[in-house]
Amino acid sequence: MANITRLDSNARLSRVVIHGDTVYVAGITSSVKGDIVEQTRDVFRQIDGYLAAAGSDKHHLLTAQIWLKDITADFAGMNSVWAEWAPKEALPTRATGEVKLAAPDLLVEVIVSAAKK
Amino acid sequence: MANITRLDSNARLSRVVIHGDTVYVAGITSSVKGDIVEQTRDVFRQIDGYLAAAGSDKHHLLTAQIWLKDITADFAGMNSVWAEWAPKEALPTRATGEVKLAAPDLLVEVIVSAAKK
Amino acid sequence: MANITRLDSNARLSRVVIHGDTVYVAGITSSVKGDIVEQTRDVFRQIDGYLAAAGSDKHHLLTAQIWLKDITADFAGMNSVWAEWAPKEALPTRATGEVKLAAPDLLVEVIVSAAKK
Repeated sequence: MANITRLDSNARLSRVVIHGDTVYVAGITSSVKGDIVEQTRDVFRQIDGYLAAAGSDKHHLLTAQIWLKDITADFAGMNSVWAEWAPKEALPTRATGEVKLAAPDLLVEVIVSAAKK
Repeated sequence: MANITRLDSNARLSRVVIHGDTVYVAGITSSVKGDIVEQTRDVFRQIDGYLAAAGSDKHHLLTAQIWLKDITADFAGMNSVWAEWAPKEALPTRATGEVKLAAPDLLVEVIVSAAKK
Repeated sequence: MANITRLDSNARLSRVVIHGDTVYVAGITSSVKGDIVEQTRDVFRQIDGYLAAAGSDKHHLLTAQIWLKDITADFAGMNSVWAEWAPKEALPTRATGEVKLAAPDLLVEVIVSAAKK
């Protein structure tokens, strides 16, 4: 029988799905308006919370996708926050690309997979 | 030894790959011409079939990526079909972004992972 | 305790993360300047090396995402290299979309998951 746990489900999606010892987090966008640094900080703050709720943390990240509305303007700003947040001794794989998001104010959306501790 | 099963392989790719108890489905676009509602319905119809062939179903979805050619025009239409299709009690994580697809008629492409039942 | 191995980590990310018997490779772009054929060849050459280092190979691919800067111009060229490289008897699932990348010279970025042998 499949071993699936879902957290923070709304009418459309779950923020976290845990299957076996893998944790899926997707579609995380900023809950505050702001520039790329403010939005990226808010996204990683949320991801820290989701990973904690799932029995994981940023030291157990496996892979990340970072979607930026404007990669030319915002790659450096996103990376400055990533450099503060991502643990140097436990870096995931990462792909970053320019992808327009569902609302015009959104500058960044992040998808990660992590392992349970 | 790796436990991998591939289904519906053509000359370029497989539509379904099963590894252990995880099912990967990717690159699903509409087989019919039509607007975003018609194309999204056809994509989910295909995904239902692929999941069934893999011993899974939409109640065991883990995560989804939805790529739209025009997110401004088609986000609402895609979501209307998603709301009919995705099971409220078993929602996956989901990220939706604007990504131009391989043929000009294609409005939506979907990638999902699911668990075997 | 999580069973995670990371390979080829730089200051920002790891090129390979292994969790259990799943291998994640992401963010692979060409290390040489060139057209889509040259860049795609270089990307798959790197991926072959990363998979080998992880105890996998292209016959154990599970899923791939291929991001092209210009899908109209470069889909055919990328596919010509894919056809040479991807093993016909062991094709992964695959999604290909147009995603602008972090540097203007980059035409293609590839993300794959694979199983350990």
